[in-house]
Amino acid sequence: MIILGIDPGLANTGWGVIETTGSKCRCLAYGCITTHAHQPVAKRLCEIYEDIRAVIRRHGPVECAIESIFFGINARSAFATGQARGVALLATAEASLAITEYSPPQIKGAVVGVGTAEKEQISYMVRILLGLDHEPTPDHAADALAAAICHAHLGRHQALAAKAAGA
Amino acid sequence: MIILGIDPGLANTGWGVIETTGSKCRCLAYGCITTHAHQPVAKRLCEIYEDIRAVIRRHGPVECAIESIFFGINARSAFATGQARGVALLATAEASLAITEYSPPQIKGAVVGVGTAEKEQISYMVRILLGLDHEPTPDHAADALAAAICHAHLGRHQALAAKAAGA
Repeated sequence: MIILGIDPGLANTGWGVIETTGSKCRCLAYGCITTHAHQPVAKRLCEIYEDIRAVIRRHGPVECAIESIFFGINARSAFATGQARGVALLATAEASLAITEYSPPQIKGAVVGVGTAEKEQISYMVRILLGLDHEPTPDHAADALAAAICHAHLGRHQALAAKAAGA
Repeated sequence: MIILGIDPGLANTGWGVIETTGSKCRCLAYGCITTHAHQPVAKRLCEIYEDIRAVIRRHGPVECAIESIFFGINARSAFATGQARGVALLATAEASLAITEYSPPQIKGAVVGVGTAEKEQISYMVRILLGLDHEPTPDHAADALAAAICHAHLGRHQALAAKAAGA
């Protein structure tokens, strides 16, 4: 199964695509959509929307894992992130991807084992879990890959639990 | 000139279309896109995006006035509103509308004369200024029409000021 992970933000929207086979995850691609503050917000949102659409067309994911908001941030940041997340979600919903939200502690917990991990630990574990020869950069791309890995792991646990319950 | 006003929100996105001729404003249409909390967020965002696109196709506005956020609200509300605003802005940008943002006090000031006006005053003045035989409902639609009126008035003042400066 091909999973798209997204770490949305108005200035930087990280994305990562992985393929899962059994318990194994393989990285297909990752990147970061960077928009510039001197551009009108509407233009920046168009870029994020078009770039996420292009990633979906190119890699054909069927499921999407997206970060929910961390409510320690202020209203201004939440508003900016919300706008970016809105157009990213729209692009994935239009392509009929099944979307699941994960909180930052859930993602950190699934990738590093603790919900309070630092950025460096996430990049390091994403590299190990995907067998990359270097740590993915920038952080936004690593976070997006972490969201996709979180979805793969939790989805696999849920499938195993369902099988055990049915046995 | 035909102006689209938008008051974005995840649960309720108000919209209003007016036509300006000199100093006169005429209401062409208004409404409110209501989405339900039991639906996935992505589906709600698709509805807002598609409905705004349909309004643009039907009424052919060339400019758009949209409310900016009121930063008295909390991060959770700002995030939800941001997502709705993101897809509304995307729809208007894709249709090449010229977009201007106005804060709630700017809109209230332009329509009622004071930046701290109540909802009822706004509906009342929108009715008077557009010569409607009843007050537009719901409040979200009245607020969207108020944003469009604000844009018409400020645009006219700016054009007059430019003319005076050039004379």
